[in-house]
Amino acid sequence: MKAFKGNIVYTKVPQSFEIAEQSYILVDEKGRIECIAKELPDGFDPNNTEDFGNQMIIPGFTDLHLHPNQYPDNGLGYDLELMEWIEQYATPVTELYREEETARKILSKFVEELWRYGILHSVQFGALDYQTNDILFELMIQSGLYCYLGKNHTDYKKDKHDVETTQESMQTALALIQKWEGKSDRVHYIMTPSFAPGCTEEIMKWTGDMARRYHMPLQSHLDENVKEVSMVLKRFTDCRNYAEVYQKNKIFGNDIKTIMAHCIHTTEDEIQALRYSNVFVAHCPHSNCNLGSGIMPVRRYLDSGIRVGIGSDISAGHTLNMMDNMRAAIEMSKILYVEEGKAPLSVSEAFYLATKGGGEFFGGVGSFEPGYLFNALVVDDDALAPLQKHTAADRIERFIYSGDERQIKRRFIEGQEVPRPFFGHKGGRHEDF
Amino acid sequence: MKAFKGNIVYTKVPQSFEIAEQSYILVDEKGRIECIAKELPDGFDPNNTEDFGNQMIIPGFTDLHLHPNQYPDNGLGYDLELMEWIEQYATPVTELYREEETARKILSKFVEELWRYGILHSVQFGALDYQTNDILFELMIQSGLYCYLGKNHTDYKKDKHDVETTQESMQTALALIQKWEGKSDRVHYIMTPSFAPGCTEEIMKWTGDMARRYHMPLQSHLDENVKEVSMVLKRFTDCRNYAEVYQKNKIFGNDIKTIMAHCIHTTEDEIQALRYSNVFVAHCPHSNCNLGSGIMPVRRYLDSGIRVGIGSDISAGHTLNMMDNMRAAIEMSKILYVEEGKAPLSVSEAFYLATKGGGEFFGGVGSFEPGYLFNALVVDDDALAPLQKHTAADRIERFIYSGDERQIKRRFIEGQEVPRPFFGHKGGRHEDF
Repeated sequence: MKAFKGNIVYTKVPQSFEIAEQSYILVDEKGRIECIAKELPDGFDPNNTEDFGNQMIIPGFTDLHLHPNQYPDNGLGYDLELMEWIEQYATPVTELYREEETARKILSKFVEELWRYGILHSVQFGALDYQTNDILFELMIQSGLYCYLGKNHTDYKKDKHDVETTQESMQTALALIQKWEGKSDRVHYIMTPSFAPGCTEEIMKWTGDMARRYHMPLQSHLDENVKEVSMVLKRFTDCRNYAEVYQKNKIFGNDIKTIMAHCIHTTEDEIQALRYSNVFVAHCPHSNCNLGSGIMPVRRYLDSGIRVGIGSDISAGHTLNMMDNMRAAIEMSKILYVEEGKAPLSVSEAFYLATKGGGEFFGGVGSFEPGYLFNALVVDDDALAPLQKHTAADRIERFIYSGDERQIKRRFIEGQEVPRPFFGHKGGRHEDF
Repeated sequence: MKAFKGNIVYTKVPQSFEIAEQSYILVDEKGRIECIAKELPDGFDPNNTEDFGNQMIIPGFTDLHLHPNQYPDNGLGYDLELMEWIEQYATPVTELYREEETARKILSKFVEELWRYGILHSVQFGALDYQTNDILFELMIQSGLYCYLGKNHTDYKKDKHDVETTQESMQTALALIQKWEGKSDRVHYIMTPSFAPGCTEEIMKWTGDMARRYHMPLQSHLDENVKEVSMVLKRFTDCRNYAEVYQKNKIFGNDIKTIMAHCIHTTEDEIQALRYSNVFVAHCPHSNCNLGSGIMPVRRYLDSGIRVGIGSDISAGHTLNMMDNMRAAIEMSKILYVEEGKAPLSVSEAFYLATKGGGEFFGGVGSFEPGYLFNALVVDDDALAPLQKHTAADRIERFIYSGDERQIKRRFIEGQEVPRPFFGHKGGRHEDF
């Protein structure tokens, strides 16, 4: 048993923070939280205590949706809209990965960035090809971070970015699943049909069958852009809405743990479908702005009991800084407040989405309630201090509004510190450490 | 004559970047730019050359609207709306400044932050009291940065935050003007009536008279919040709109160089008035989101030929990072694009607002055209590099989307490097240097 002492901040429910100043989190041998206490239990060995002083201890972040292979394009091309952006940025970037050494360098840096930003859990939308995903599985397992990662299926012939046949698409996924699924308790495969406009019905059905047969989750995109929606409705004339395409092909929740990214232009029927099918929604506010997609009705989803987490959506989103992504979620919700009178996200709600909300997709992470894993960050917010004393409630708000990765000093998974992954390459942001 | 070499990036017009890779900026003894050239002129003394290698040289930023004394509240209270936020945050914070030593510490830190974020020019909405403004004038002059700063007038009796009579309000301003105006070429006084709901007509008229008599500019707030607007229309029943209150009291542009912050809920008549009166508008996108105020119609203003700059609006806005403020301006404009079809701000337009747009209020800063002052930043964006070569156009976009103060390595004003202001106090963000 270990005890970690500090100013403990987390959310059980979206509506409010749970705050225990100068308290202990007691963690068992398997890294599970026993309880939070003001004092150590009688007879507790003080050598098993780590005291973080005035720092804050918060749950590690979950990034529920991002595209690792787009990482080199981060911060580029945002004068374009979705379809143009895919053509001019998201597609050409895949060329970079042809050479294994380059692919390894870029992906190593990406994995280090996840660590740096305290993204202990991520759901990654993989590349199309075998090699990029293969390297990434290896690096993610090496890092000690949690993730789901899956090969992106884009086999629809009318899509000009198509680079694989349905058969190749299946074979690539099967090879990755065979090699990597079951190799690690922390890194798992997720079936990943790109989105309706990029998939044959055959591949959609197949990803669903695979997910059910091997108890794997599934991720895709839904209702991101109005042009995309009309493209879908034109092709699938038998479906009344976009979600129905996924329902018809049996890849929409229910017996599969499913994430749908974006969900901006959802109809009332689709919202009900998300709810009844128990689908997780990945809210990607920066991406939705950058590509001019629109504002996701996050309050509508929370009110409907739909499970929501935050996605950086790198590189349509421009930052892995989850505080910045929380701020963006709040800001977007405030626009809907002004325009439609919908209650905006509070600071605690945004924090919940980035910790427990997305963490529920993994299960047992993102909170400090008993039984949750101690997957946690230690935050030194002294550099944000304003020369006046503040409560922990003020400090967490300030960290969310003014913070970045510099304040994240330590990272723990299952009660053990996660060292900085280092794969031997130099350059880029590394100098900043 | 001096020459600075690097990758030179600036905007003449909002529509596009001017980019001169690996070129020289030639600067005369007074710090004015002669020209940009690929090669040094014959006979130019190479000892007068500074080579920044692969770094970018960009104009220093202008923050057209911020409240220095609210700086300790930065990142706090954003679950509240404007009027509640003023009561619970903006007003109580003034207590901190009663003790001179504390005031000096906080304000020193604030001035260092301006330097750090490359805000070489700022228009500061001062405190109500003499001492806070007095210290800030001293520190700003010491820093070598450009600014306008004025004592905030809030003398309207029905305003419960009122702490001064009209007479006191005038006397405080007069004392500050007498002591500080004319003391420095870089730091000037600006008449600062708070906003219509907080001012008597007497003080509004008086600030206008003072501005005209002593050739000082003037700043205030306009149309930030719908409740504020209706409060104004209820009190000034003879005015058809908010701007007319300022017009009637002769503090709205024309013969006074004027900034109006926010300008969100402007009517068509007010937009015409802003244009005909030649008023500068300070666009504060983060603040407008944080306080649930709304989205400023920036495209409408640019199309109308109204002059616009960007304001961080600390601490209703949460960051002095001008890249973050540019990103926010673009993101907000993209929401209006989705909702109203208005063309969103491009990356170059946002950069223009933060450099030349706001710089025009000072005159001769914010661009690298001949005759402009070399008030510039040197940006090392290596840490943002993605392991692939990019053009300068890509690099400036990436800096705007992914950058922060860490990449700003050098700051120049009038051709001279500005050293980090250091006022002898420790703590806070200082350790990060």
